[in-house]
Amino acid sequence: MTTLFQIKYPIIQAGMVWCSGWRLASAVSNAGGLGVIGAGSMYPEVLKEHIQKCKQATAHPFAVNVPLLYPNVGEIMQIIVEEGVKIVFTSAGNPASWTGFLKEKGIIVVHVIANTKFALKAEACGVDAIVAEGFEAGGHNGREETTTLCLIPMVVKAVTIPVIAAGGVGSGAAMLAAFALGAEAVQIGSAFAIADESSAHPNFKSEILAAREGDTKLRMKKLVPVRLLKNSFAEAVAQAEAEGADAEKLQQLLGRARAKLGMFEGNMEEGELEIGQVSAMLKEIKPAAEILQSIWQEFLTEKERINRLDFRLI
Amino acid sequence: MTTLFQIKYPIIQAGMVWCSGWRLASAVSNAGGLGVIGAGSMYPEVLKEHIQKCKQATAHPFAVNVPLLYPNVGEIMQIIVEEGVKIVFTSAGNPASWTGFLKEKGIIVVHVIANTKFALKAEACGVDAIVAEGFEAGGHNGREETTTLCLIPMVVKAVTIPVIAAGGVGSGAAMLAAFALGAEAVQIGSAFAIADESSAHPNFKSEILAAREGDTKLRMKKLVPVRLLKNSFAEAVAQAEAEGADAEKLQQLLGRARAKLGMFEGNMEEGELEIGQVSAMLKEIKPAAEILQSIWQEFLTEKERINRLDFRLI
Repeated sequence: MTTLFQIKYPIIQAGMVWCSGWRLASAVSNAGGLGVIGAGSMYPEVLKEHIQKCKQATAHPFAVNVPLLYPNVGEIMQIIVEEGVKIVFTSAGNPASWTGFLKEKGIIVVHVIANTKFALKAEACGVDAIVAEGFEAGGHNGREETTTLCLIPMVVKAVTIPVIAAGGVGSGAAMLAAFALGAEAVQIGSAFAIADESSAHPNFKSEILAAREGDTKLRMKKLVPVRLLKNSFAEAVAQAEAEGADAEKLQQLLGRARAKLGMFEGNMEEGELEIGQVSAMLKEIKPAAEILQSIWQEFLTEKERINRLDFRLI
Repeated sequence: MTTLFQIKYPIIQAGMVWCSGWRLASAVSNAGGLGVIGAGSMYPEVLKEHIQKCKQATAHPFAVNVPLLYPNVGEIMQIIVEEGVKIVFTSAGNPASWTGFLKEKGIIVVHVIANTKFALKAEACGVDAIVAEGFEAGGHNGREETTTLCLIPMVVKAVTIPVIAAGGVGSGAAMLAAFALGAEAVQIGSAFAIADESSAHPNFKSEILAAREGDTKLRMKKLVPVRLLKNSFAEAVAQAEAEGADAEKLQQLLGRARAKLGMFEGNMEEGELEIGQVSAMLKEIKPAAEILQSIWQEFLTEKERINRLDFRLI
């Protein structure tokens, strides 16, 4: 993966709405990982500005994540081509729709999936690699609820292209576990969402640090499943779901722009707070480069520990 | 763990209702792992017979798993002491209730938990080791929904006693991942539920082999969360839950003896079928010894592969 992306470490920062603009992406790329701008929360003109600033801020490769079901995808893809972006991660949609277009322009394409069926489909569409994302991941999530531990070996077995593990990877130990399962790189969201360079609101970063086990739950399963951090809004959703609310009711409850309200504007009660289960392990806001190095060093240390494991069979 | 239990391989077969009687437990112990009789589905007299037959069938250590919330726990503990069982796994209840009693008799005690709070509590009660079980596990499950990948590092960090990883471990690769996360042994359920020696009904074993991604879901969250394989009963539960059924309604739907009806008597429509997410990976019914060896050999092979991983930093 490091050869494909021309990066130093097989660590990819997840494209996240309201967290990963040019500051975070360029910081991760400058630190030797792959920074990813999350286009999901950006109007086309805003994305263009982020790409231009990212190019100025780093000479290293970076990528753009494009949720395919969002409006303006055509316009976004045009900007990506015009601005010379070399790597695109597509998610939340059909890989058949844009993979051909991007590959024709010489762009490396990675597609995000949560089951082997879509992994095979993405491979057939000609993508260069796959992100396989498990149940523990923050934000939007697969309906199968398959965890990273179960998903990665199945996807690795199903496809011949490289697999990047996502969901639950917030430490070097978890990164090593992903490699043990056959992944060739990891995509890390939550741990980078609290980086200094993340555009998440300081209130949201504080809430992530305060999160404990069980504080995130997969909600909105009748719409699109999404992992939310506990707050007034998430509790209202949980209550409505427990009472049998249908998709329409949930959509009403969700309304518009709640992710922005919470993650970007800092309303911790009424905003939608998307974060993964690893939030329960995160304890400190640091520069992205330090986060990356601490994960990498722990990965190497744990790899050495595993190398030395010796079983005296009795 | 192998020293503590006096076994050859750090592989423990999970005590499972209706699957793990003396045949499976003795087969696993004879193969060098730790076999566990699941007392949860046994009347005291039945358990006594299973322990006696297990002692005849193997000279190696085996254990009994006792769900502490079940009736007759006192009687069961008395039988365990009288029959000289050397290792007890306690689950589904307060470790304070029986750990002292068992330790006084010189019995090794392991407690099953799904969060760090209970891990710390079990440690304080004096247990010898902990099984930390993630969301992907079959059967009864924690309310936090923390996956094995997220749970193990947190528990390992919280306690000083050894941690056994459970949930999602059905292959040597997953076993290595568990070790990467800091576990010192694994507890494997689903992969042994389909062993030749498992007392699961052949119909149930066939359904496990046929299971695909997304076919198990955590249900009954308003009672005690339990991971169920898709069938008419599970669909009825899903439907009731989607419509907002309360605990009482769910209890009515569940009725009595549904796990026996499905897992032991083979009613694939109306029975309760408890199995983990790894069921989607299982393809073959084999003797327990072959299952154990294939997991162990894959563990060693994957460990070698990880040892050889070399990152050319560019």
